[in-house]
Amino acid sequence: MTTDSSAPLVRRTATTLADGRDLFYFDDSEPYVSGEQTRRLDDPRPLPGRYEPVVTIGADGVETVQPVTGPTMRYDVLTGEWIPHAAHRMNRTHLPPADANPLAPAKPGAAYSDGEIPAEDYDVVVFENRFSSLMRVPGTVDEITHVDGEDLWQQRPAVGRCEVICFSPDSTKSLAQVSPRRMRTIIEAWADRTTELGKVDGVEQVFCFENRGQEIGVTLHHPHGQIYAYPYLMPKTETMLRQARAHRERTGRNLLADVLAAELRSGRRIVLESEHWVAYVPMAARWPIEIHLAPRRDVADLPALTDAEREDLATVYLELLGRMDRFFPAAEDGTPTKAPYISAWHQAPVREGRDDLRLHLQIFSILRAPGKLKYLAGSESGGGAWISDTTPERIADRLVQVAS
Amino acid sequence: MTTDSSAPLVRRTATTLADGRDLFYFDDSEPYVSGEQTRRLDDPRPLPGRYEPVVTIGADGVETVQPVTGPTMRYDVLTGEWIPHAAHRMNRTHLPPADANPLAPAKPGAAYSDGEIPAEDYDVVVFENRFSSLMRVPGTVDEITHVDGEDLWQQRPAVGRCEVICFSPDSTKSLAQVSPRRMRTIIEAWADRTTELGKVDGVEQVFCFENRGQEIGVTLHHPHGQIYAYPYLMPKTETMLRQARAHRERTGRNLLADVLAAELRSGRRIVLESEHWVAYVPMAARWPIEIHLAPRRDVADLPALTDAEREDLATVYLELLGRMDRFFPAAEDGTPTKAPYISAWHQAPVREGRDDLRLHLQIFSILRAPGKLKYLAGSESGGGAWISDTTPERIADRLVQVAS
Repeated sequence: MTTDSSAPLVRRTATTLADGRDLFYFDDSEPYVSGEQTRRLDDPRPLPGRYEPVVTIGADGVETVQPVTGPTMRYDVLTGEWIPHAAHRMNRTHLPPADANPLAPAKPGAAYSDGEIPAEDYDVVVFENRFSSLMRVPGTVDEITHVDGEDLWQQRPAVGRCEVICFSPDSTKSLAQVSPRRMRTIIEAWADRTTELGKVDGVEQVFCFENRGQEIGVTLHHPHGQIYAYPYLMPKTETMLRQARAHRERTGRNLLADVLAAELRSGRRIVLESEHWVAYVPMAARWPIEIHLAPRRDVADLPALTDAEREDLATVYLELLGRMDRFFPAAEDGTPTKAPYISAWHQAPVREGRDDLRLHLQIFSILRAPGKLKYLAGSESGGGAWISDTTPERIADRLVQVAS
Repeated sequence: MTTDSSAPLVRRTATTLADGRDLFYFDDSEPYVSGEQTRRLDDPRPLPGRYEPVVTIGADGVETVQPVTGPTMRYDVLTGEWIPHAAHRMNRTHLPPADANPLAPAKPGAAYSDGEIPAEDYDVVVFENRFSSLMRVPGTVDEITHVDGEDLWQQRPAVGRCEVICFSPDSTKSLAQVSPRRMRTIIEAWADRTTELGKVDGVEQVFCFENRGQEIGVTLHHPHGQIYAYPYLMPKTETMLRQARAHRERTGRNLLADVLAAELRSGRRIVLESEHWVAYVPMAARWPIEIHLAPRRDVADLPALTDAEREDLATVYLELLGRMDRFFPAAEDGTPTKAPYISAWHQAPVREGRDDLRLHLQIFSILRAPGKLKYLAGSESGGGAWISDTTPERIADRLVQVAS
């Protein structure tokens, strides 16, 4: 996959799950096999094809055939945003039992896996989400229709894709605990998926992110992230693009490059610097903890990073996650108070704004203090108006203090 | 306060708390007194004036005088939003003990109240929040400065005001349980505060809202809401204004009026209709439960409502809150599963967009099912991209089903 000869070997093996979903192994360790010995490439589970009509037989013995319909999205005229309504997810079947971990490797010798991954071991694996909020159902025509026949109310199939990325076969690890070598493999997987999903018909933006912690609703503790390929620009991206274009018109310069330059000149909120990367708390941070990590060079997205930038990123990324784990003091019995976090890769969209937007990672937390969440209530959720109870400088000071 | 002679009498009495904050009683019941008999208008608590410098004496006996600084806000160049950083709130003093209810009426005959309200009884009361995120400190010059001397980084005092509104003297009630007469008084109070706060120097928008439920972080169960007066347009309002202006340019018509007309034509998502109001689930609803309530007439804000519209609103508002309480089935032991909610009044700003924006109430919940929250994780909080697991039609059907 990586063509640079100095890069560590990552072997990508594509396969298909029993219901037709794609799965990709990204192997970095001997024997680099996803084949005969330790990995089963086939998925022998008796899953129905996911585009097959759902057949149910009623109490009266009458058979009902329900064709699979994909998710649809509607245009919110008040905000200019597309909202997918994934009601098709309500037809979910074959959910794993509550105690099963669908991201664990298959048990050795088992007829088939309880979970999603047929291999008995893996390094990093990516697969299509089974009940995806964004999905193209074959045969669906991707065109605008009007809800209730009203011109104002546009609706379209919510094409695109939702993928899951498993960071480690070990359910007890967190991403912060993987080796730099493995982190590098994850970066390769993100870059690969960004390139590949960017080619999918109708996709406008690829978003790689991790939700970590029960406080933000994560119930599956196996270390994993998600990759969404949207058929529109994310509203946050739309907003940044509008700001960046206005800045370009006014100054002729790139907004995100100017922001980084200003943070470096000031130095007051710098969290760490490496050869290729700079981490800082943004001047107008809105979350109780918030870090932006940007490459020194103008880079549009993850695939555009050089080998040296990727290698450096692996180390820097793990260091930042470690600082999130140490941000709050440990409990009295020594148990660490790991901050829940969302880690979000802001990449330039597939087509638009590639000169105006610039790759950066945003890591942020909703924990204000141990046991105390910042809730997104009236001001934030109702009005979109953020109010912070701390200052960017306090956040930066603490992040510097907890360096490894 | 109300000049319309047919309106029920609401008597507004202004007073000042010990530290200089404003407090307003809105009385609707005999003896309409906030005076001698049952109400003490003066606040005899030994509170320091809130603009007085904080004096602390160190272990070495040296006195430190720290002048009170107000909140500041910074301009986020990536999003075009102002973010107040209310770090001054960290100097909070005299917090009530954890078991005290600061919104309860004063105990009869006590030297002074444990809480914020000096009267021994009240109907509806509004007062300035003690540690306000938006506040003008006298003597502060409201001008733009530059953080770290960088042109890109603007900072200003976060002037404005945050007020608390108590809906009832009874801590055990919820807003849904007050009488239509009391609800009408609350509407009068909201309208009064919208008018008055709109005159405060530097205020651009007034936002009345209620956060209800532990799931959204409410720890104080006394029925209350909040009124924020922002020195900028809320980002949600900015967005709606941009959409409404584009719609006006394209069609010559008001966007929100067209939306209401389309919902009425379709009828599919109508929740209730009264003489002056229509409640519907918006065509592109993003929350697990979401209701918009709009007057039939073009109205910019609460003060612009007629007496008849206010009277009708009192009944309709209570009916909608009752449906929120019944939306989810009760627990097996009969305990109601009351949906946590945010109730948000979208009003036209003080100066801008008064012809393009139109008053409407948005009531929404983050509860997907009993015990199951919709978390705002990577897609929503990182990318601003909402994905719904239900459909507007399902929400509307349920809201019609649970009519009283």
